[in-house]
Amino acid sequence: MSNYRKESDLLGELQIPAAAYYGVQTQRAIDNFKISGARLSGYPVFINSLAMVKLAAAKTNFELGVLEEKIYNAIAFACKELIAGKYHDQFPIDMIQGGAGTSVNMNVNEVIANIALEHMGYEKGEYQYCSPNDHVNLSQSTNDAYPTSIRLAFINMNAELVKYVKRLVEAFRAKGKEFADVLKMGRTQLQDAVPMSLGQEFEAFAANMEEEVARLNSNARLFLEINMGATAIGTGLNALPGYARLCAENLAALTQQPFISAPNLVEATPDTGAYVIYSSSLKRMAVKLSKICNDLRLLSSGPRAGLNEINLPAMQPGSSIMPGKVNPVIPEVVNQVCFKVIGNDLTVTFAAEAGQLQLNVMEPVLGLSIMESIILMQNAIDTLIEKCINGITANREVCRSMIMNSIGIVTALNPYIGYKNSTKIAKEALATGKGVYQLVLEHNLLSQEKLDEILDPQNMIGPSKLRTGQ
Amino acid sequence: MSNYRKESDLLGELQIPAAAYYGVQTQRAIDNFKISGARLSGYPVFINSLAMVKLAAAKTNFELGVLEEKIYNAIAFACKELIAGKYHDQFPIDMIQGGAGTSVNMNVNEVIANIALEHMGYEKGEYQYCSPNDHVNLSQSTNDAYPTSIRLAFINMNAELVKYVKRLVEAFRAKGKEFADVLKMGRTQLQDAVPMSLGQEFEAFAANMEEEVARLNSNARLFLEINMGATAIGTGLNALPGYARLCAENLAALTQQPFISAPNLVEATPDTGAYVIYSSSLKRMAVKLSKICNDLRLLSSGPRAGLNEINLPAMQPGSSIMPGKVNPVIPEVVNQVCFKVIGNDLTVTFAAEAGQLQLNVMEPVLGLSIMESIILMQNAIDTLIEKCINGITANREVCRSMIMNSIGIVTALNPYIGYKNSTKIAKEALATGKGVYQLVLEHNLLSQEKLDEILDPQNMIGPSKLRTGQ
Amino acid sequence: MSNYRKESDLLGELQIPAAAYYGVQTQRAIDNFKISGARLSGYPVFINSLAMVKLAAAKTNFELGVLEEKIYNAIAFACKELIAGKYHDQFPIDMIQGGAGTSVNMNVNEVIANIALEHMGYEKGEYQYCSPNDHVNLSQSTNDAYPTSIRLAFINMNAELVKYVKRLVEAFRAKGKEFADVLKMGRTQLQDAVPMSLGQEFEAFAANMEEEVARLNSNARLFLEINMGATAIGTGLNALPGYARLCAENLAALTQQPFISAPNLVEATPDTGAYVIYSSSLKRMAVKLSKICNDLRLLSSGPRAGLNEINLPAMQPGSSIMPGKVNPVIPEVVNQVCFKVIGNDLTVTFAAEAGQLQLNVMEPVLGLSIMESIILMQNAIDTLIEKCINGITANREVCRSMIMNSIGIVTALNPYIGYKNSTKIAKEALATGKGVYQLVLEHNLLSQEKLDEILDPQNMIGPSKLRTGQ
Amino acid sequence: MSNYRKESDLLGELQIPAAAYYGVQTQRAIDNFKISGARLSGYPVFINSLAMVKLAAAKTNFELGVLEEKIYNAIAFACKELIAGKYHDQFPIDMIQGGAGTSVNMNVNEVIANIALEHMGYEKGEYQYCSPNDHVNLSQSTNDAYPTSIRLAFINMNAELVKYVKRLVEAFRAKGKEFADVLKMGRTQLQDAVPMSLGQEFEAFAANMEEEVARLNSNARLFLEINMGATAIGTGLNALPGYARLCAENLAALTQQPFISAPNLVEATPDTGAYVIYSSSLKRMAVKLSKICNDLRLLSSGPRAGLNEINLPAMQPGSSIMPGKVNPVIPEVVNQVCFKVIGNDLTVTFAAEAGQLQLNVMEPVLGLSIMESIILMQNAIDTLIEKCINGITANREVCRSMIMNSIGIVTALNPYIGYKNSTKIAKEALATGKGVYQLVLEHNLLSQEKLDEILDPQNMIGPSKLRTGQ
Repeated sequence: MSNYRKESDLLGELQIPAAAYYGVQTQRAIDNFKISGARLSGYPVFINSLAMVKLAAAKTNFELGVLEEKIYNAIAFACKELIAGKYHDQFPIDMIQGGAGTSVNMNVNEVIANIALEHMGYEKGEYQYCSPNDHVNLSQSTNDAYPTSIRLAFINMNAELVKYVKRLVEAFRAKGKEFADVLKMGRTQLQDAVPMSLGQEFEAFAANMEEEVARLNSNARLFLEINMGATAIGTGLNALPGYARLCAENLAALTQQPFISAPNLVEATPDTGAYVIYSSSLKRMAVKLSKICNDLRLLSSGPRAGLNEINLPAMQPGSSIMPGKVNPVIPEVVNQVCFKVIGNDLTVTFAAEAGQLQLNVMEPVLGLSIMESIILMQNAIDTLIEKCINGITANREVCRSMIMNSIGIVTALNPYIGYKNSTKIAKEALATGKGVYQLVLEHNLLSQEKLDEILDPQNMIGPSKLRTGQ
Repeated sequence: MSNYRKESDLLGELQIPAAAYYGVQTQRAIDNFKISGARLSGYPVFINSLAMVKLAAAKTNFELGVLEEKIYNAIAFACKELIAGKYHDQFPIDMIQGGAGTSVNMNVNEVIANIALEHMGYEKGEYQYCSPNDHVNLSQSTNDAYPTSIRLAFINMNAELVKYVKRLVEAFRAKGKEFADVLKMGRTQLQDAVPMSLGQEFEAFAANMEEEVARLNSNARLFLEINMGATAIGTGLNALPGYARLCAENLAALTQQPFISAPNLVEATPDTGAYVIYSSSLKRMAVKLSKICNDLRLLSSGPRAGLNEINLPAMQPGSSIMPGKVNPVIPEVVNQVCFKVIGNDLTVTFAAEAGQLQLNVMEPVLGLSIMESIILMQNAIDTLIEKCINGITANREVCRSMIMNSIGIVTALNPYIGYKNSTKIAKEALATGKGVYQLVLEHNLLSQEKLDEILDPQNMIGPSKLRTGQ
Repeated sequence: MSNYRKESDLLGELQIPAAAYYGVQTQRAIDNFKISGARLSGYPVFINSLAMVKLAAAKTNFELGVLEEKIYNAIAFACKELIAGKYHDQFPIDMIQGGAGTSVNMNVNEVIANIALEHMGYEKGEYQYCSPNDHVNLSQSTNDAYPTSIRLAFINMNAELVKYVKRLVEAFRAKGKEFADVLKMGRTQLQDAVPMSLGQEFEAFAANMEEEVARLNSNARLFLEINMGATAIGTGLNALPGYARLCAENLAALTQQPFISAPNLVEATPDTGAYVIYSSSLKRMAVKLSKICNDLRLLSSGPRAGLNEINLPAMQPGSSIMPGKVNPVIPEVVNQVCFKVIGNDLTVTFAAEAGQLQLNVMEPVLGLSIMESIILMQNAIDTLIEKCINGITANREVCRSMIMNSIGIVTALNPYIGYKNSTKIAKEALATGKGVYQLVLEHNLLSQEKLDEILDPQNMIGPSKLRTGQ
Repeated sequence: MSNYRKESDLLGELQIPAAAYYGVQTQRAIDNFKISGARLSGYPVFINSLAMVKLAAAKTNFELGVLEEKIYNAIAFACKELIAGKYHDQFPIDMIQGGAGTSVNMNVNEVIANIALEHMGYEKGEYQYCSPNDHVNLSQSTNDAYPTSIRLAFINMNAELVKYVKRLVEAFRAKGKEFADVLKMGRTQLQDAVPMSLGQEFEAFAANMEEEVARLNSNARLFLEINMGATAIGTGLNALPGYARLCAENLAALTQQPFISAPNLVEATPDTGAYVIYSSSLKRMAVKLSKICNDLRLLSSGPRAGLNEINLPAMQPGSSIMPGKVNPVIPEVVNQVCFKVIGNDLTVTFAAEAGQLQLNVMEPVLGLSIMESIILMQNAIDTLIEKCINGITANREVCRSMIMNSIGIVTALNPYIGYKNSTKIAKEALATGKGVYQLVLEHNLLSQEKLDEILDPQNMIGPSKLRTGQ
């Protein structure tokens, strides 16, 4: 028995490994695109999405009477095999290809056709019984099936990412509670401002990340509008009337996601607006998470010549030359992931702008960049939770002594002695090194009793309960 | 009478022009920041927003009993003068400053104080009767009043921008109707694909831009969450309990915008997430509009050696050397504006990431970049509508002849003769220069009657009505 | 006498203000492009460059015998008037236009023609005696004259910018000398590392910025390759053989810059590579300067709850609510300028990528973005020198006490007791709060005399002179 | 025999696979950083560079008398094994880590130490005889050895990339020669301009890419300045005087690259300016190559409804639905790679800006992003040459007919009949559909003989030889 079978296409005949479920067009893509080393087989969620879209399309074709039951059943069987995680090694093509995803679409068409053929008792390659183009791709084009699959993949990947974000929120929130009574100086513009609690700071991290759940989900919902039935350019040539709507319904039923058919398929086909804004929402999260990691590194700076308010868990020796040094390696790696995500967003921006006329041919790099960002972000968040946040401890004494020593507490005196007088006290404190407390008494500006009440840090970390009683 | 009055602050005394309503801190900002040449006085919507925020704060203070009625009335008078467009020349400071907006906040505090003082019968500078800090800024900090004002300005600017986008949609839609019966070749990957109408193409532009209305508004709604009452770092020090909520209500009543107080003021104060995603939505629109302008330039390329499907109105001679040349200057200028908006979005990204601890000190450049982008985009859209879209005409004969001449129409035969046979016809057409129609007949693949029906371009620009009857 | 004269072009007749030196094509540009508000008249260096290029072209045409002496003299007179700073108000067009700079080129052609006409005793508009196209623009196209003028403008603007950078280097260097004996802890990853002097830190800032002089100049030299003689697309149609070379020589003589004619004019005409890399070098400087400003803000954080190693001069009260607060407003404004420059670089990247076939039509926004960045950078540097660096003082005691208190000095013991032993000491110091010095003695690892020698901070801020004598 | 050995560090004991040449710190990095999936072992050039740097350092230490000959010999043996490609599977750590490269540096230190130990007859882990820190890392820190290794890797990778660029230049140049006599219309702003040859167009592509060789090499030369001897922060603590210079010399001798020691090691240690500008030069090439690919796709658009001037080789069927469609898949994939490179450059920009004080901790993502870009670019260029450019053919008749049919040739008449008259002819041609040639004769503007001479396309693709004889 030969190790190869022959298949042909527009460009002629080609040898395909006999064991391969993919066919001639996949083989051409393997040969043409040796680019990134990232392969479709490394993105199982995407393969599953492709299979679900193909299943929904086949079901629709069957229901509309244009696909025979026998072939439909075989295609459905094949799709389910893929969804079950089988045959994923049959998707060897590079994630960056030319052709606007045609290679990906044909890869899945071919694999499904050959699984179906075998299921029906035929040999691989006997496409007269089930053809990648005429049966598996029936009523479809790359230009609708491919972006729809990407969208489904993004919806599923986003749902997974959001789980990580929620865990991150919980981790910060737990520390917020743990540190609720650790008083410390707040800082604006890196200058001493007014007191707060370390718990407020961590709870703010939690609240900050919690907002991302809504942003991610809200922007991911835009992926629910799909263009199945558009075929080549959105005019629906070769698809039956009603196909678009029914296919969206079938996909919705299959995936339990409320997919709808885009109201204007000519518009929807080249449009990559949903990619742009979803990638922007990943960028937004990256920007915010990077800021938080910057803060964690700043708050844990020291131990002796820095702020030293918190301790990050020691994960590894910090230096090949400086003994005993422990570095904030986890926030550092998260920062770097954030920069990657921001870079990927620019790739998305360029790729989206490059769409022309009835198609955006840059969808493969759009898809890859967003998938990369989601996966990187998940890994980074998981690492941040497990190897950093959960182990953070507070240096309570350091935090408290900075308040006691500070000038910023003078702010609390404004309502009692006015901004001008407070300014004088602050200026004198800075010049002489004396404390605010002492100076207010020296200048007879307030009674000691009143001063004690006002300057109790506990009274300073929320709205002015004192004055209410005035 | 002297031309100057003297004022003092933490750093000492300074001469202020006697006629100036601004005071010492504005003067310092004028001296310190000679950076961009863009001045606050050039952004009247922003000045109005600052005045509205100050009015809402004063009203809240009055209602909470911490601001005397007489002073409140004077401050309210002053705010209304600003809202009426008066005294805008009193805001000479550079739009890019250090200090996280303190100079802007103090500029408006000082101008309001001095207008109020005169209104009460005092001289400018007699701050003992109405102080920029103790009265106008009462219960506030730059860190709440300034971002709240920016947010209000963005909400108003967005509402204006959306009007332009809607006009753009209408302009495209009108052309969509006008060109509904102009048949032409659709193109994917710049290669001939299948027929469509020019009307579908312009209607798709309309639908594409129409989506931006929802995106812009949805993202602008995030600006409705404000942090008044946060004071310095979100703990609300020096503001009364209840101030935050009441101030948001007062601002909502004043502006007819449903402002709410952020649930976590410590989080809200340094957070610039809303800026990031709103700027991203401007970027998204820029990306999409740039793609449309690229298409307009491509479709109007020629006149003899290009696609030449449409004519853009001639706005100016196109060349200093090539007589008779007319260039697509209006889409070109819109493309350039889009690139500026994309660049500004990166500035926003960097500035947002640079926030530290309890504040983001880069808000001035965040604010300026987004305002610049909105204004540029409005001007570009207005220009595009009036000087380009409204005057576009179609070259019907050119469009039709390209269909007649094309190979892509073979796609419509797939459901009748199969992908393999269609491929053979296409290949032969390409090699011989013969038409698809002729070749199908030569090969006896379909009857002439059937072929005429299938290849009627009118039947090709929508789902396959023919096969329904099969 | 009428207030208007009539002029006509390809599109018909138009009224021009009688006093205007510009003509019909400028008028169309005024009407067409109401975009950015930034006008050509605000960029005098650019107007001068346009005039110099026009002068060089006219001289070349005269020398080649295709321009009459009388007309040449009049054109030369007009160019010199512009170079002398006159008539700059005659350049009212928006800096962002469509048309690849045609409007700018025609604006200068028209103004020169009319000045020349008056100089010859004719009326403005009597173009039969000196035409904007046939005489001023002779042997030229927008596509060579415009980019050449931009390049000349960039060369001059870069020379000016470099002066500012050199002053910045000197300012840092002076502080480097002043602080040469201020010992402090160096920090890596925000964690205490090993000792250094504050002078080394500032000298490093100087050295860091000094490198930019070479980078800026090296990249600006790419602008010396010009495409005069290319005319429309680089083929030189309508220019005489020899014109390209001679015109470059004439421009070189006129400007004292070693301009050369690009070896391949078809390549040079659409190419914007020099813009891209020069803008990148501005971005590089922005990235580095932003890092330095971040450091200045970090080092001056405090005064009580931060690093507090240096004091920036107080430029203005730091807060509308927190009395006595002084913020690092000058580095903050410089950071923001850096973010603008980085954003502009992205605009340049997009605009450069958008070039098509024989021209890059996005040159106006390319030019504007780079000019903006240079001017912003100059203003920011000047402000940084005068209002920040020159007034920085050191907190010597704070710096020294952090060394004495540190664990990082244990690094110096590696060569004597090994990394493993040093690690143990460090670990114990961190756990117990004890000093490194004390622990080494307690463990009898080194004699006190040896230890004193090794741990003398002065011995730690350079290569190990001690061990040389081993 | 156990499958594990035990090693310990600052944080305690850990089990290491007995067969592993890496040690405890590598193991911690494996556990800590599960981020990108990209592993050090996938970057052999980088591993080789690390080994060369370690070898140069060991040699320097030996020559300076601080490393015993026996240990030196063993270390040198180990380094050479790595350079020979052995043990590369011992580098399993993620390419993105926190710790500023410490994990990479310790990975190589540990692998070298264990190879050396076995070479000397000891067991792996018997670090008392050859320690990763005390011997392999002697006189070094991650902060000098790691960036120096990255720089060496970049120099070697750049040299390889440049070979690909040169091949690309040759490929374009060959087509330039092949198409030298194919006359066609040049286009500016996508509008018909004046004639040129297709050969000129491809030769311009060659010249355009040829410039990149100089840019890449010029910017890569900045990597030759290294900071060996800086140790932790550039002060050279624990390195002997003279070490820095001698180590640079040894590395230069070893690599045949003219490395020099940075003049200011405190500056050089945190500085990432060379990365920024080299990445910018990759971005510049990406921008230019993307423009060329856009052009290739435009010129090959059609076949019937596009420009159709050239044919790209057919690499695969273009559509799953449109039979016979062949798409420009190779330029499309190159465009996408260019967008990735541009995105990576933004990651580099962010990472560079994030440096703080005496170190830039983001170097791992800086290194990875640039390496990724180089490799992607190489693959893309190779693919472009082999699968696209070499097979391009010209449609001579299409090209010629567009000239004959064009109005743009009227430009050549300017010097004879003036811009105004030419404009009239052009206008009339556009309105009537008549040819320029015919109209000039109808209006008696030139004799037929003269006209034939002027309008000979061959005379239009270079400077005006005709007028020279005037």
